[in-house]
Amino acid sequence: MAKTIKFTKMQGAGNDFMVIDGVTQPISLSADTIKKLANRQFGIGFDQLLLVESSAVADFKYRIFNADGSEVSQCGNGARCFVRFVVDQGLTHQREISVETASGIITPKLEAHGLVTVNMGAPRFKPDAIPFVAESAANSYVLEVNNQAHNIAAVSMGNPHAVLIVDDVETAPVQSLGAAIEYHPRFPERVNVGFMQIMNEHHIKLRVFERGSGETLACGTGACAAAVSGIQSGRLSSPVKVSARGGELSIAWQGTDTPVMMTGPAVTVFTGEIDLDAI
Amino acid sequence: MAKTIKFTKMQGAGNDFMVIDGVTQPISLSADTIKKLANRQFGIGFDQLLLVESSAVADFKYRIFNADGSEVSQCGNGARCFVRFVVDQGLTHQREISVETASGIITPKLEAHGLVTVNMGAPRFKPDAIPFVAESAANSYVLEVNNQAHNIAAVSMGNPHAVLIVDDVETAPVQSLGAAIEYHPRFPERVNVGFMQIMNEHHIKLRVFERGSGETLACGTGACAAAVSGIQSGRLSSPVKVSARGGELSIAWQGTDTPVMMTGPAVTVFTGEIDLDAI
Repeated sequence: MAKTIKFTKMQGAGNDFMVIDGVTQPISLSADTIKKLANRQFGIGFDQLLLVESSAVADFKYRIFNADGSEVSQCGNGARCFVRFVVDQGLTHQREISVETASGIITPKLEAHGLVTVNMGAPRFKPDAIPFVAESAANSYVLEVNNQAHNIAAVSMGNPHAVLIVDDVETAPVQSLGAAIEYHPRFPERVNVGFMQIMNEHHIKLRVFERGSGETLACGTGACAAAVSGIQSGRLSSPVKVSARGGELSIAWQGTDTPVMMTGPAVTVFTGEIDLDAI
Repeated sequence: MAKTIKFTKMQGAGNDFMVIDGVTQPISLSADTIKKLANRQFGIGFDQLLLVESSAVADFKYRIFNADGSEVSQCGNGARCFVRFVVDQGLTHQREISVETASGIITPKLEAHGLVTVNMGAPRFKPDAIPFVAESAANSYVLEVNNQAHNIAAVSMGNPHAVLIVDDVETAPVQSLGAAIEYHPRFPERVNVGFMQIMNEHHIKLRVFERGSGETLACGTGACAAAVSGIQSGRLSSPVKVSARGGELSIAWQGTDTPVMMTGPAVTVFTGEIDLDAI
């Protein structure tokens, strides 16, 4: 097993990744090593590690690890970087690539203008599927938080999201209200909280308080949840440009039971080599 | 001018650096580019950028830039990484290297066991030199903070330091008391605040609230200030091992008007290449 490995550092809308070619470079990383690599002073530093491997059932397999070493099943921003990586590294000449992930096979596509489109699956609005405590599905719910009533939309993009419409995302109480809603008893598995400012029917500004992480620069599923909830209630029309702090995403959705398509950037920041014995 | 540059990422006691060989690789970086490189998602990510250049008056010249692009004159942890870098890159075969910095020529030394020793200059205790508002120099002062009296030492290591002795660094109120002392009116240029727990006369644990930055993993001048203030008051004896969150430093000081010698680690984390046009 190689102790010195080559890697590429990438980012998609500010969500950053260490990407490793495990096809031509056999590699096995322990959770402890991943934690060390994730450290921004003592290692490479990243939100997620993407490990590209060969697959028996698709063009590639790709595995996603959080900074704490745990393996997760989906990451929209990561899927875009994965596509850009396999094309740039010459591992494929295709533009539409089938990828085996822990949550099934996806087929992200490198667009002509360098952006990447990923199928994010269909949104689910039924309260049980989110999960959210409510009698029946609705476009809007009233949520009591610290004796104040807030109108929210609730939707699952594989993970639970609450979305609030605000007048100005810059002054919205993202930290305090986000944390209070994350742990609201009506969201038994906690929830990601999006604060969306509607600029026009095809453009929103968005800040997301992520479950377990706090505010992040860009949340792929959060962008999908916000756009879809706005389209569902008639305030927005597909496609919707989402301006997040880390960059812009474009979300297209054709309505009930159809998948959400997310298009956005995938940027190579630098390439490097690290001796795993030295960290 | 090369647009793709090679760099090395290093750390010394958790203080991390992007190091660039500007001797064999001519380079000129704007403050705006340095800011972009410092970003941990969109760039390399570092506390300081170290640029190694040729010198007319010493073996090398080295320049230090903060993450905001401003040039600074001294960084003890950076000086250690600089030495390791020029030796590892084969830019010199010497072990004791004269370096032109913005604050004069220093001569750091690579020790046999891989650690590096840097001359940090002599400490200054006179209130005017710190600057600190007091009638005359003393080993200890009483400082009133929010109607509570705290015993502090005050010393300059080129920058101002206040040092408090605490029973337990882990439970010390580093954030709240550090911030309150940083802006105390008796420190007209603000101050770095060290919280030191004395383990024995040759060993302290230390946390430092850095002026303008908040708590950091390790502050080289803060370690010097804490050790020197303890030696000055008779509580500590040279050399003093300083255990900081990011690693261990050893501080030696022979008393009034002699320089403080700091010995510590300098570690190469990874090497990389970045296209400056892509960030």
